Amino acid sequence: MRAQILTIGDEILAGDIQDTNFRELAQVFRGLGLLVTGHVTVPDQVDLIAEAVRRAASEAEIVFLTGGLGPTPDDLTRAGVAKALGVAQVRREDLVPRLEEIFRKYAPRKIPQINYTQLDLPEGAEPLINGIGTAPGFRVAHGDALVFAVPGIPREMRLMLENEILPWMKENLDLPDIETRVFRTIGLGESALVEMLEGTMDQWRGVGVAFYPQMPGVDVKLTHHGKDARRMERELDRAESDIRRILRDHIYATGTQSLAAALGEALVQRSQSLAIAESCTGGAIAAMITAVPGASRYFLEGAVTYSNQAKVRVLGVPERLLEEHGAVSEPVARAMAEGLRARSGADFALATTGIAGPGGGTEDKPVGLVHMALAHARGTEAWSHTGTGTRAMIIARTSRTALDRVRRAILAGD
Amino acid sequence: MRAQILTIGDEILAGDIQDTNFRELAQVFRGLGLLVTGHVTVPDQVDLIAEAVRRAASEAEIVFLTGGLGPTPDDLTRAGVAKALGVAQVRREDLVPRLEEIFRKYAPRKIPQINYTQLDLPEGAEPLINGIGTAPGFRVAHGDALVFAVPGIPREMRLMLENEILPWMKENLDLPDIETRVFRTIGLGESALVEMLEGTMDQWRGVGVAFYPQMPGVDVKLTHHGKDARRMERELDRAESDIRRILRDHIYATGTQSLAAALGEALVQRSQSLAIAESCTGGAIAAMITAVPGASRYFLEGAVTYSNQAKVRVLGVPERLLEEHGAVSEPVARAMAEGLRARSGADFALATTGIAGPGGGTEDKPVGLVHMALAHARGTEAWSHTGTGTRAMIIARTSRTALDRVRRAILAGD
Repeated sequence: MRAQILTIGDEILAGDIQDTNFRELAQVFRGLGLLVTGHVTVPDQVDLIAEAVRRAASEAEIVFLTGGLGPTPDDLTRAGVAKALGVAQVRREDLVPRLEEIFRKYAPRKIPQINYTQLDLPEGAEPLINGIGTAPGFRVAHGDALVFAVPGIPREMRLMLENEILPWMKENLDLPDIETRVFRTIGLGESALVEMLEGTMDQWRGVGVAFYPQMPGVDVKLTHHGKDARRMERELDRAESDIRRILRDHIYATGTQSLAAALGEALVQRSQSLAIAESCTGGAIAAMITAVPGASRYFLEGAVTYSNQAKVRVLGVPERLLEEHGAVSEPVARAMAEGLRARSGADFALATTGIAGPGGGTEDKPVGLVHMALAHARGTEAWSHTGTGTRAMIIARTSRTALDRVRRAILAGD
Repeated sequence: MRAQILTIGDEILAGDIQDTNFRELAQVFRGLGLLVTGHVTVPDQVDLIAEAVRRAASEAEIVFLTGGLGPTPDDLTRAGVAKALGVAQVRREDLVPRLEEIFRKYAPRKIPQINYTQLDLPEGAEPLINGIGTAPGFRVAHGDALVFAVPGIPREMRLMLENEILPWMKENLDLPDIETRVFRTIGLGESALVEMLEGTMDQWRGVGVAFYPQMPGVDVKLTHHGKDARRMERELDRAESDIRRILRDHIYATGTQSLAAALGEALVQRSQSLAIAESCTGGAIAAMITAVPGASRYFLEGAVTYSNQAKVRVLGVPERLLEEHGAVSEPVARAMAEGLRARSGADFALATTGIAGPGGGTEDKPVGLVHMALAHARGTEAWSHTGTGTRAMIIARTSRTALDRVRRAILAGD
């Protein structure tokens, strides 16, 4: 069953407001097994709204409008839908008590006349209750399509969806079962993934596969629609086992787990701890780690040692090394990691030192050069890379490759 | 001149990805004086893309597509535009060296065959250089309309827009003169700003004003369209002087400067330095500070002291304070700031300690409680707040209010 979503409003087209409703609706609809085949943002003009409704109704079974239900003259969704259907608008006197109640609760004053226009629904429409705002939504048939209209204010839309629309859809529409599995990968581009899975994925029955670049890597998403849950499960299991065999430790997590959370889980499982010394990444890695709830179980401390004095005082880097090799060097990265590991008592100590730019590069040590080191019970590993792009890109890329290296080192320690 | 924006991609329609490009484009286009009259999200299907391009080209002079320029078989923007125009796709051999260069720089390995399909542009199209990715964009005429296609990856789109498209549009399209000034404010909501400026802003001639919630506050944007540059200047100057008089130090920057950059500039001007001790913010503040190029001129070090031992060892917080008051307390925040200031020699030392949640709260110290302190030459100021929302929201809000407090303390020291 297809759905099209119409966002109504000049403020969206002007870029004044980010349309978050559409994505939220798209996710909810997909979870229901509806296929969202189109989305249009329409100006506040009756004719354009009517035309968009007619067109969407000819292409999908569900037409879902958000916005344009307010009380001001530029709120024209009611009029636009009425025009598309070729019906009049009818003042719904039965909804007046509800409007009065909302004013009593949220804005105790005389109801402005214009608010009553919010009750002028297209003839034949079924009202949808708005528990926290003055605009009722509505549902109305248009040929073989069902048209829904809800307010654009996200929390009003959400409540109406949950309380009124989703229960109705589940009861009255013939919806399929859907199952999805997501494998989050790192270290391979989209095209490399496609090449690795080509041939294999052609043999999966009923399983759709999609690739989504999603920092820090690419998500591989499997989807199965159908009515036979056991068969779907079996076919997804087969695809999953192929994916795990082929992509191995490039898979850092499943579902929506972040790289930092996967790394944290690996540390918790082994009762191990982590400390981080950052120069060029400036706290970005620590921030990623501590964004995960419960990070205090395994993250002991971070040191953002930007100045040389801090590297010496906080991490115990020998001044001689800084003089001989410069702050951006393998020996200093090693000394930072080893110094922090010794002082903090962490099982793993990561260090970064580099030139994030845009200034500060030399011929020997260009902008983008980063030395990293990871000290652990089996010794210290050091590596470097030279990134390109903006300062933010260099910091971001360094942070995610460093985290992935820590993740692999934890797994390798087993 | 009208523009329509087409977002291409099943991943957007599926709700997997939030389409942020559209809003960004809408704002940029409005700044140019283009009127965005429609926006459509189109599935990855050649026929639907072609139909959407044709329809948009009949309704607007500019048709702008984002997404669908990747190398995989579901990237069909090139094919869709070619179909709309009724032309073939042509492998642009002249772009091969550029593709090879991108691989050398970012992914030094053999170029997968499918990446070459990214060079199969519609016949007659002018390529647009992608400085950081493998997908060239393109510009091509379709009747009276101009069709632009750019990658969906936001930073690639943005670079292409800035480097290639905007300069071309300014030179080749008949656009009105537009001047804008942006005042970035913090500490006031949108409606408070409106109330403060009401009455005054009605008296500005020809100057449009818009309010954009934009972390960490609200941007106030003045816009003037016209042909008489000196008059525009004069009228904008008047509005600017009103705004500065009314909003005072709520304005932290103008244009696109970030709060961290404004703070950095204030430190550089005074030859002062900063150090940061973070517990609950976990490196987020240091990351904001060091995201600014040249931060090493004033940022000495950050200490992410997550564990109590780290607070004692790295910052010299007396163990007694931790035992008596707990880590999340004003005395500990003060001791962190003062300890770091003494050890690092920084002029300003900021400290945060709190409970970012979702776990770890108690009746006395609920989730969201954060104690902060700032040590400087005039003494130590301490303050606290109790935030609500997710862990990420609590960390973000703490980080920006703390940075703003440092900014105000720097200014107050004059």
